[in-house]
Parts: sequence; C-alpha cells; structure tokens
Amino acid sequence: MRTTATAFAPATVANLGPGFDFLGVAVEGQGDVVTATVRPDLPGGSVHITSMTGDNGRLSLDAAKNCCGIAASATLKLLGVSSCGVSLECTKGLPLGSGLGSSAASAAAAAWAVNALFGAPLTKADLVPAGLASEATVSGYHADNIAPAIMGGFVLVRSYDPKLALVPLTWGGDATQLWFCLVTPVFEAPTREMRAALPKNITMALHVANAAAGAGLVTGILNGDARMLGAALADDTIVEVARGPLIPGFAAVKEAAIAAGAYGCTISGAGPTIVAIAPERDKGVAIAKAMADAFRTHGKLEVGYAACAQLCADGAREVAPGGGAQSPADKVIRLV
Amino acid sequence: MRTTATAFAPATVANLGPGFDFLGVAVEGQGDVVTATVRPDLPGGSVHITSMTGDNGRLSLDAAKNCCGIAASATLKLLGVSSCGVSLECTKGLPLGSGLGSSAASAAAAAWAVNALFGAPLTKADLVPAGLASEATVSGYHADNIAPAIMGGFVLVRSYDPKLALVPLTWGGDATQLWFCLVTPVFEAPTREMRAALPKNITMALHVANAAAGAGLVTGILNGDARMLGAALADDTIVEVARGPLIPGFAAVKEAAIAAGAYGCTISGAGPTIVAIAPERDKGVAIAKAMADAFRTHGKLEVGYAACAQLCADGAREVAPGGGAQSPADKVIRLV
Repeated sequence: MRTTATAFAPATVANLGPGFDFLGVAVEGQGDVVTATVRPDLPGGSVHITSMTGDNGRLSLDAAKNCCGIAASATLKLLGVSSCGVSLECTKGLPLGSGLGSSAASAAAAAWAVNALFGAPLTKADLVPAGLASEATVSGYHADNIAPAIMGGFVLVRSYDPKLALVPLTWGGDATQLWFCLVTPVFEAPTREMRAALPKNITMALHVANAAAGAGLVTGILNGDARMLGAALADDTIVEVARGPLIPGFAAVKEAAIAAGAYGCTISGAGPTIVAIAPERDKGVAIAKAMADAFRTHGKLEVGYAACAQLCADGAREVAPGGGAQSPADKVIRLV
Repeated sequence: MRTTATAFAPATVANLGPGFDFLGVAVEGQGDVVTATVRPDLPGGSVHITSMTGDNGRLSLDAAKNCCGIAASATLKLLGVSSCGVSLECTKGLPLGSGLGSSAASAAAAAWAVNALFGAPLTKADLVPAGLASEATVSGYHADNIAPAIMGGFVLVRSYDPKLALVPLTWGGDATQLWFCLVTPVFEAPTREMRAALPKNITMALHVANAAAGAGLVTGILNGDARMLGAALADDTIVEVARGPLIPGFAAVKEAAIAAGAYGCTISGAGPTIVAIAPERDKGVAIAKAMADAFRTHGKLEVGYAACAQLCADGAREVAPGGGAQSPADKVIRLV
C-alpha cells in the first residue's frame, strides 16, 4: 500500500444537444487534481478533506457534502477498505457551474486517486458508480459527465435501470479531425435553474426528431464524421430552445461559430459554456475567437475561458504530485 | 430506351422499438415485383395499372390511389419523361397491413422498374422521395419503410426538415451474425388504428430513456453487435407498451422469443408481425418456431408467415421478368 497518490480528471461536455442526459465526452485542457493520502489515524473508511483550492472558498470541506469526499468515500466502500481513513487535497482547475463537468471532474479525480492508493484493483467502469453517488448528491442522478470524466472519450449512458449500463463510443476518425471549441463567459448558470427551464412533457413529433438527431450524433461519432456529429449536435429542438435564452448572447455566439465554419454549436452541459465542433485546429481557433468576441459584444459578458481542444481519450489518470494537469500543447490551444 | 423492366423490392422492418419513425431495415425473403412497360399510346407522363395480383382484389387499379401508380408517376416526374406513358403489372408477395412494409415494397419496386426503363439515371437515394410521395398518400409521411425498401440495409431517417436526410447505417459484423425472426399472424392491424394508440405527449424521462435506447440501437448496428442491437430494440417504453396489447398474444410471443434465446423482440412496423433478433441461423429458426407456436397457443391466431432471414443489403433491384423475387436459400429459412 502506497501512502499517497495524485490523479487528474478532465473537463467533460455533457448533453451534446439531442444527446441530452445520455451522452458525454471528455475534452483536453482544464481539469481537477486530487491527492489522496492514507491516514491510519482516521477512523476506518472515513474521508477528511485537508484542503480545497481554486473554488474561491465556495465548496464545503465537509466530506459528506463535497464531490471529492463523497466519491472517495464511495470508492473506499467499493474497495472494502476499513483499516484506515484517507485525506484529500483538491485543486480545482474547472470553475463551478460552468457546464464543463466541474463536480464530475473532482469526483473522478478523487475516485481514481483513492483507487490508485490501494493498487488500482478497480477498473474505470467499476468506479463510475462511486462518482455517480457524488453527482447524485450535488447535481442530480446523471452519469453523462462522470462517466466520460473517469473513462475518457465519448460515453453513451445506455440505461440506469435495472443497472447502470455504459457504452464507450470510439471516435471513428483521426484525433486531429475533431476539435471542440469551448467558450465560458463569466456568468454562472446554476444547474438546478437550467433544469427547471426544461419542459416536463414533449410531443411525440419532437421526441422522434430529437431521437433521430441523437442517432445521427452516434453515427457521426462511430463513423468519425465530424460534419454529421456537428450537424446533429446543433439539431436539438427540446433543450437548447429552453435554455439558450437564459444565457446572454447565446444566439449570437452560435451564429458567430457557424459563420466562422463550425459544423455545429450548442450549450455544454447546463451552460453557460458553449461548445462548437471544428474539423481542424486552425479553424477551431478562429471559431473559438469568434465565439468569445460574440459573448463580449452581444452578451456583454467577460470571457473566463476560451480554447480549442481535442477529445481526451484517457479520462482520469494518475499524475505526478502537484503537476501533470496540463494537456500537451498540440491537444489544446487556449485563447483566454 | 427499353420497352420493359421488372424490379423486386424487399420487406422492411420499421420502427425497431426505440427507432420509432426514424429507423428501418430491409430483410431477405418476401417482397413485391413490378413490371413497367413503355406505352407510347398513353398520355405523356401518365401511368396505367394493367394488373395487380396477390392483393385479393383489395387495392385500387386507379394509379392515383395505388402505391405503385403514385411512385411510378413521381419517378416519371423526377426523370422529366413527357414523351410517353408507362403501364405497370404488380405482383404482391407481401400481405397488406402486416407491418412488413407492404406499400413501401410496391412503391420501391415501381420506382426502380420505371427508373430502369429509362436507363437508371437516378440513384436509389434520388428515388426515395418518389416512394415517399406514395407512402404519404397511403400510410403517412414516413420514410422508414420506403428508404430501406429502395436502398437496402439499415437506413436512419435523420430528418425531414428542411430536406429529407437519409443515412445508410452499415452493419458492422458478418452477414451471418444477424438474423431477423419474423412471424406474421393472420390478423390485420391497420396502420391508422395503431397510430391512434400512441400517446400524443410523453414525459422528458421517457424521451431520454427511449433516445438512449435508440442510440444503443445505432451503436449495435455500426459495431456489428447483435446482442446490443437486440437489447436496445426490446427496450422501448413508449410505442410497444401502447401497441402490444392490440396484438393478441404479443406478450407471450415476446416471452417465447426471449426464452428461445432471442437477443430482443418487438413489433415490426405497426404490427402485427413480430420481429426478434437472433445471433445465428439455427437459433433463429428455433426462435421463429417458438414465436409461431406462441401466436397459435396464446394469441389463438393462425400464422401466415414465419421465417428467419438475413439483412437484405441490396434493396430494390432489377430481376428477370416473372421471376427472381426469391432470396437465396442460405439467406432466408421459411417455416410457414
């Protein structure tokens, strides 16, 4: 048994337009880092949060109310550890309420760090339920951020009932042929409020149209067809119409992305981050820049993050203590 | 210009559980045959139906009210033919109102025969709108039967608006690893009544569950994973629950299919044909037999057709006059 392990988990884009609540993808760039330390002095199976940075003091250090703490505790339970406790130090690279899977990244990094501490006996898929326990407490019972944050790549959340069924969807093209343009304004869109904006019921016609678009999304992913993926992602007539108006400048940002050559554009997670799909790096950089400009001009918002990033195939991974959270420069170009 | 051409088009399974209204597949076995003949004596662009067999005298010979006639007329329009008319002889191999795409097969065969008559300048995808014009008149504006009846294989009807977008989905496995068990009782389930049974509105939770299952269906197809395809096909919580009870014995037939080893089972089209997925030929034959027995015992219905068939990759195709409508014996095993 080691005494300490540090893990990184990436940002994730959930919902993906018609993939609402069942499809998510991990992206290179920002992420959260958690260091777990074995603490024989703590009660067996217990978790103590030693420090939390990058959250501007907003997150609770009570392990029972914190993403890292809940995920670490659930992981210890899965591992059957009762001989010692664990302490956590968390460094958040992702802003809260940004639509980039901030809580999932913390939970994924904590779960992977704790698993690593005990020799990594559990697989990534095994660990998703531990992260889901955390998500259920802080933002609702949805696996579309936590599954890709741990497993990497695109993950289809096929069903929750009778048991959680996850299907990794392998991007069918070259990694350099799919770029995610991500722009986050300085504007917090709380997940609960964004959920409240959704219709409770929809017509069969809307269901069929969105389900067909979701099928197009999966086809685009598996066939490595960024154009089909982008077009499908933008073809959501249920969620985007309800949430878009709650994000100042959204319509202008989407228009700017398409005008700059994006294959599609929609809200990332519950927003306010907007995601667009680009076929190659340079075009992706130009699209992200146009989106950021549109947020400033039309949304009257500052931009906190703007980048053009590749798919993150790895998901959660162990890194050197205090470092390793940065993606290679050829996989993410950060503008802001 | 030739004087005559004969085409065959196959049966199709539409809906496929959560693929309701956007996914269909062509299957080997039964189908319809149409012979088109150039008629310089008829008004330019006009269509005359000379004979119709296999419909028990139920279909109109008025070309404006008949699937073959409407599709042939629309094809002549697409071809820009105004110098002559065309006469049609149609032999129906598919029973009406069976859920096997009977009207689509007639329309597809007619469209392909007329196109062949003039040197086949139009592609199969070009011809789908001609068939759709026919479907819209006789059974509603849905392309999930007509698209695979013409193009073959699985076809995703990605959208209708702003224009019809069709995506062929290539089965990712070996052709011998996917068998469709099809059992048709002697019981007519009229499309309109089956449509009326559907809910007008559904909850978001049902939408997400069915869209995720639809995504699983597409993943199973593209990855050549019959087990995933079958499980997704059976995991429909919107359409099957509404229509199943209208088909006597449905629950028992589905249960018998699963007990005999089917990966999944649901209603084909608007029924009453039931379709199950089998991984190999011999198991498929046993499943089809069990389904037929269950229809007789529990549904108290005669069985009109029971077979175990492969995917029909070809779709509509030219055949020798008066023949060629049979699939090779290794691609379909007919029990009834």
